[in-house]
Amino acid sequence: MSLLNETHAPELTSWIDSANLPGTDFPIQNLPFAVFRRAGSDEAYRGGVAIGDQIVDLSLAAQCGALAPECRPLAAAAGESSLNRFMAMGQGAWSSLRLALSRALRGGAADADRLAGCLVAQADAEYAVPARIGDYTDFYTSVYHATNIGKLFRPDNPLMPNYKWVPIGYHGRSSSIAVSGQAFERPRGQTLPAGATEPVFGPCKRLDYELELGIFVGAGNPGGRPVSIDDAESHVFGMCLLNDWSARDIQAWEYQPLGPFLSKNFATTISPWIVTLEALAPYRRPFERPAGDPAPLPYLASDANRAHGAIDIELEVLLESASMRRAGAGGARLSATSYRHAYWTVAQLLAHHTVNGCNLQPGDLFGSGTLSGPTLDQAGALIELTAGGKNPVGLPDGESRAFLEDGDAIILRGWCEKPGSARIGFGECRGTVLPALAE
Amino acid sequence: MSLLNETHAPELTSWIDSANLPGTDFPIQNLPFAVFRRAGSDEAYRGGVAIGDQIVDLSLAAQCGALAPECRPLAAAAGESSLNRFMAMGQGAWSSLRLALSRALRGGAADADRLAGCLVAQADAEYAVPARIGDYTDFYTSVYHATNIGKLFRPDNPLMPNYKWVPIGYHGRSSSIAVSGQAFERPRGQTLPAGATEPVFGPCKRLDYELELGIFVGAGNPGGRPVSIDDAESHVFGMCLLNDWSARDIQAWEYQPLGPFLSKNFATTISPWIVTLEALAPYRRPFERPAGDPAPLPYLASDANRAHGAIDIELEVLLESASMRRAGAGGARLSATSYRHAYWTVAQLLAHHTVNGCNLQPGDLFGSGTLSGPTLDQAGALIELTAGGKNPVGLPDGESRAFLEDGDAIILRGWCEKPGSARIGFGECRGTVLPALAE
Repeated sequence: MSLLNETHAPELTSWIDSANLPGTDFPIQNLPFAVFRRAGSDEAYRGGVAIGDQIVDLSLAAQCGALAPECRPLAAAAGESSLNRFMAMGQGAWSSLRLALSRALRGGAADADRLAGCLVAQADAEYAVPARIGDYTDFYTSVYHATNIGKLFRPDNPLMPNYKWVPIGYHGRSSSIAVSGQAFERPRGQTLPAGATEPVFGPCKRLDYELELGIFVGAGNPGGRPVSIDDAESHVFGMCLLNDWSARDIQAWEYQPLGPFLSKNFATTISPWIVTLEALAPYRRPFERPAGDPAPLPYLASDANRAHGAIDIELEVLLESASMRRAGAGGARLSATSYRHAYWTVAQLLAHHTVNGCNLQPGDLFGSGTLSGPTLDQAGALIELTAGGKNPVGLPDGESRAFLEDGDAIILRGWCEKPGSARIGFGECRGTVLPALAE
Repeated sequence: MSLLNETHAPELTSWIDSANLPGTDFPIQNLPFAVFRRAGSDEAYRGGVAIGDQIVDLSLAAQCGALAPECRPLAAAAGESSLNRFMAMGQGAWSSLRLALSRALRGGAADADRLAGCLVAQADAEYAVPARIGDYTDFYTSVYHATNIGKLFRPDNPLMPNYKWVPIGYHGRSSSIAVSGQAFERPRGQTLPAGATEPVFGPCKRLDYELELGIFVGAGNPGGRPVSIDDAESHVFGMCLLNDWSARDIQAWEYQPLGPFLSKNFATTISPWIVTLEALAPYRRPFERPAGDPAPLPYLASDANRAHGAIDIELEVLLESASMRRAGAGGARLSATSYRHAYWTVAQLLAHHTVNGCNLQPGDLFGSGTLSGPTLDQAGALIELTAGGKNPVGLPDGESRAFLEDGDAIILRGWCEKPGSARIGFGECRGTVLPALAE
């Protein structure tokens, strides 16, 4: 069965000219969802879909007459102040609204003038977290990241024996997830100085980012009713960029035996736009394991997962220091990689998460884990790029970084691109480190 | 400053006779909150307060005229389908409503007949999780439990070096928390058989309970704004019983390096009634550490915490097997302990949780961690009582248990009792193990 349909046709163009420009993240083949309002206003947040440099206000689109009558309730649900109700409607609903919007936004669409009245320029918008996130789970799907980190902690035994069998994950904090633009005070906490036997309290000295993708659960499952791997993707609404900020010195002292806690839960930043799994269909790839690695257990294996379980999403991290920002120089790229290197697929993560009977709910978020690729310049965190801080990375203006400094902004970007398919972009995910509170 | 006020006076009695019976969990000095409706009905869930064997329906009480006018908006908030809005109102509101209810329920209260029309018998009620739990954090506050568990995994080095410095905690799963009465299928998952190098998939063979207390956050804090230890208790709404079901064989295989995940997130059971911190005031005790242990870092220390940081809550665990249930024999006690043995206080947990800037929200839940006491018969989990399954515990009908079997119900109970103070009970927290799904 082909994953492609008329909405993916590369030749489609829109009557919104900016959607047809080369290099746009948001051509008519993308149509990602966010929750927005006019910046600085006291308007209600509502759902929208990106097209070129515009947003279709779905709460207006539901009423404007440009969509087929059967799709108006879908647009109304997606136009609410969070996407949860739309997410709960399931894959059929998501796909129907995508098709309706694709047809209404194409060049020559009959009711273009009606839909034109539902547009807000992205330049005038601000965004909210697009769903009420009941639970946030962070995975660990890059074998390269797990190995790089393991080498720093356990040189002789970098990769745990469970890694190639278990899609390792743990629960993160929902309350401190914010949308791109988040700024947060450098966390304070307990750390154990090198050689000391007693900890000290103070601002984190080894603050790091982690380049991840976020995966939004659409339809949930009841407790006690696992989702099979063949059904897993029908529960996934879409993906975004995610920065799992990490205080490495706090983490090293606190994480045994129960895992990261205060080292992670002060802030997590996501991009505003959720790119649907359907939009990513042209970029699916076979899922292959390195020769000699064990086959996944049966509940983590399927023909479809082998045929197109992976997704080729290009990713990059940029750092913009305070002085670079003052100079208007833009960010400097720290690394670039692709999601195709992940050791576990989205379907495997969801099947694993529910195999014990755990219930998922619409709006739940998974983090992919740091998406480091096979080579060092593809590493998704400073702790890897700098070998635990020993080899600082240089920045174009002569600065260097072992770990993040106050005023640093980290910008994540993601996109899919190849000949014969439309570019599918994720926009950006930006967050900024503020100085710690005074003692 | 005394923590006691007129609502704690031991001589108070109620015009509801069952509240005056010796041994009741719910005398007029308690007044815990739950969310309930008539069992089997399609009524809306609403907030209520326990008094003897009755529930005061707060949504009705807000309108019946028995409460002072300034307290009616408080009762209306507490009468909603979840307690979050009332929790967010803060300590002043909680205390005002407690005082108003105490006065209205006392013998001789002027408007007793009006309030009598707002009662529902507990025998006729069913309960819901009392708040929308945004985030659930499980702590590890028993040094005895940490040591007992550590001995099984690391005989030479049972207690991690961070234990006496860091109130260890990790994030748990909110979606699978349910109220007393929960029944769940035995989880399935990956485990590594003894001596094997490759895992197998199947039903958990080492299913366990954990005796904990739950701590509900009332007022939250904004991100980046830690709560000081002296202010911490004003953010705590109250406490309940909590069973952190645990699949030990899944846990052993999955938990490194990021902590427990599928071994815990299939089910967590809480008791319906939240006993307020104010109701527990007569049972506060000095918080003392064993001689020779390090003093807590300054952000975890205060005079008030030393003077009355601990709480003397008696706790017990009972097991009722399917055959005991058929025989109507009731449960057999597996162990008993007290919360006064905890190594970290409630105030320390909350101050620690926010010291890095993490924001808490009304309705967030903390688990205390397994509350094992200093001796083996005070252990709060089977893995400790049976030394990892090696020494099964006997049951009165001739059965024995290394770990839980299908049909077993675990019942937690908690209460405070001492001469000169009213008994403050928690009711019970019951959950039942169902057979695993067929392969």
